[in-house]
Amino acid sequence: MTTSTAARVYNFSAGPAVLPEPVLEQIQDEMMALPGVGSSVLEISHRSKDFEEILDDAVARIKAVMNVPDSHEVLFIQGGGALQNIMIPANFITEPSGVADYIITGAWGKKSAGEVKHYGKLNVAYDGGSTKYNHLPKQSDLKLTPDAAYVHLTTNETIHGIQFPQLPDTGGVPIVADKSSDIMCGPINVSDFGLIYACAQKNAGIAGATIVIVRKDLLERSGDRLASYLDYKKHAQAGSRFNTPSTFPIYVTGLVCKWLQDQGGVEKMESQNKMKSQILYDIIDSSDGFYTGHVLDKAERSVMNVVFKLGSDELDAKFVTDAKSAGLTTLKGHRSLGGIRASVYNAMPVAGVEALAAFMKNFASKNG
Amino acid sequence: MTTSTAARVYNFSAGPAVLPEPVLEQIQDEMMALPGVGSSVLEISHRSKDFEEILDDAVARIKAVMNVPDSHEVLFIQGGGALQNIMIPANFITEPSGVADYIITGAWGKKSAGEVKHYGKLNVAYDGGSTKYNHLPKQSDLKLTPDAAYVHLTTNETIHGIQFPQLPDTGGVPIVADKSSDIMCGPINVSDFGLIYACAQKNAGIAGATIVIVRKDLLERSGDRLASYLDYKKHAQAGSRFNTPSTFPIYVTGLVCKWLQDQGGVEKMESQNKMKSQILYDIIDSSDGFYTGHVLDKAERSVMNVVFKLGSDELDAKFVTDAKSAGLTTLKGHRSLGGIRASVYNAMPVAGVEALAAFMKNFASKNG
Repeated sequence: MTTSTAARVYNFSAGPAVLPEPVLEQIQDEMMALPGVGSSVLEISHRSKDFEEILDDAVARIKAVMNVPDSHEVLFIQGGGALQNIMIPANFITEPSGVADYIITGAWGKKSAGEVKHYGKLNVAYDGGSTKYNHLPKQSDLKLTPDAAYVHLTTNETIHGIQFPQLPDTGGVPIVADKSSDIMCGPINVSDFGLIYACAQKNAGIAGATIVIVRKDLLERSGDRLASYLDYKKHAQAGSRFNTPSTFPIYVTGLVCKWLQDQGGVEKMESQNKMKSQILYDIIDSSDGFYTGHVLDKAERSVMNVVFKLGSDELDAKFVTDAKSAGLTTLKGHRSLGGIRASVYNAMPVAGVEALAAFMKNFASKNG
Repeated sequence: MTTSTAARVYNFSAGPAVLPEPVLEQIQDEMMALPGVGSSVLEISHRSKDFEEILDDAVARIKAVMNVPDSHEVLFIQGGGALQNIMIPANFITEPSGVADYIITGAWGKKSAGEVKHYGKLNVAYDGGSTKYNHLPKQSDLKLTPDAAYVHLTTNETIHGIQFPQLPDTGGVPIVADKSSDIMCGPINVSDFGLIYACAQKNAGIAGATIVIVRKDLLERSGDRLASYLDYKKHAQAGSRFNTPSTFPIYVTGLVCKWLQDQGGVEKMESQNKMKSQILYDIIDSSDGFYTGHVLDKAERSVMNVVFKLGSDELDAKFVTDAKSAGLTTLKGHRSLGGIRASVYNAMPVAGVEALAAFMKNFASKNG
């Protein structure tokens, strides 16, 4: 048994983000050699039986945690959301004249939409940019294409702290969802989605692994026209080992899912995430305007990323600096929006949120 | 200070492969929290000053170790060699009528050539497949295109254990080299290459990071026509942080390069790699045919992957099984070639090679 050698802070980073301490401890314990293997997980072949077990276990745990039906395949791919932004239109828009609908509710959706032109036509079904993405569209705001290849949305926008409480009605057109920052934050119905993608480094592991959950019938859409690595079918046929996958990040995702199961699964996470984020929203709401939340409608506020600002840029900066001195780190908002962002992913303990809440109250009374 | 909890074997895996023990020990020591940071390297934002230092350090060490001139850029990209096989023709073949030359001296070169058709015309300048890639082409064997976009080759073919002792003359056409299995195995002149790529999990780290060293003037070739993640220019402009890079694999590459510098650099590695591989080749050559090397010409035998076979598939299998019992693992040859493969990358200690040599002698005398 190895032990920690350094004091840990409460890390509110939006991603790469905090991991459960028991996961870090297991990684540390096994670093020199996996039990019974004699080599580190960093050193074993992706074709070895030992790694095959790790990969199969990670996939099985994702399926169990998210209740993935047999209609869907779970893949690990490298390249993050940025490569998914290419693979999605490349695979699913079947001809250059084809259209994909994008519902843009934040900076990540905007970035995703920007890649469509290389593979087909983009229809912006909604873009909330003119109001800095501080609210979600109503169903009647959406300009959907009846025969679109798919409808893309970002279920939780990390930068703006805005999260869909329920999915829009797309009239049977497959929903493709970037769930990078809210995968496994609570129960969902995977059957509602044609494809889900999530880079692992927020709620499901570390940077380098991207989880893709795709409806099997959609795998056939691309035919034979794509270069190999861009083709979901190739990854699926090879069981995520078309080439050497990012072995260590996959191992970490398996450990994170096991921890999540030990905690009581996504149902437990959902209630805890609501509770954690509410602690912070309550302080914002009762601060008499000292703190202002970015999102207008309480029902649309993210349970993962609590985004707010103080009365001035100077006060924002002082908040971040003072918080860091108090062991509460990475609270600066994204450079595109400014202000403060506290990310309270699954692995952020309640004690960390309570520490931040106490700091916020104290900071407001001193500086209000 | 943490310690190992399990006995380690000598791991001859072709990749992901053995790492230096001091590197594993440092990773283990720092796993719970980086010194002075309070969070694990797995948990820190890729935009943080702490990670920026890790990334800058890794790039600086690669430049120092490989003596990279100012004319070339060092990038980290995800997706392994498989994604490079797409990015290279996509970026460098400037129009659909353009031609790229591929010198195919093993299975990896063959795979690389297979992706060209999506972006331009493939000219197979040489393919040694009919003789199972047991020798390299002479200069006069090469059917080069005078105005090719580039000439691709694989400097060391991991599966067949064959390595170019010097580069062919391409008449000024940029050489694009897959150096996945022999990067940093000895000194090279980076100026001889238009682009070098290497997935890190053999000589330079772990799976999930691909090192790309590209001549800066070639970055402009792609113009504005590519989707973002496929465009080298985008990665270069963003200093390898176009999106979240694989932070932990980059940290490991930095540690491996530091270890390599502490050992005496690539000059020292070269002499040691020659010595290590020669120990095994000498046993093969003096075994009176009990062991047969795959590569015909001694000058073309790889210093990284020693590939040979015994008199029958059964004897090959017994060799692998008995070796594993003796703590010498992952010696089975690639499924496409059979036989035995002992990979003796930089991090394989001389003691490991000596243990394998003693085993080989003993096995031959018992089973010969």
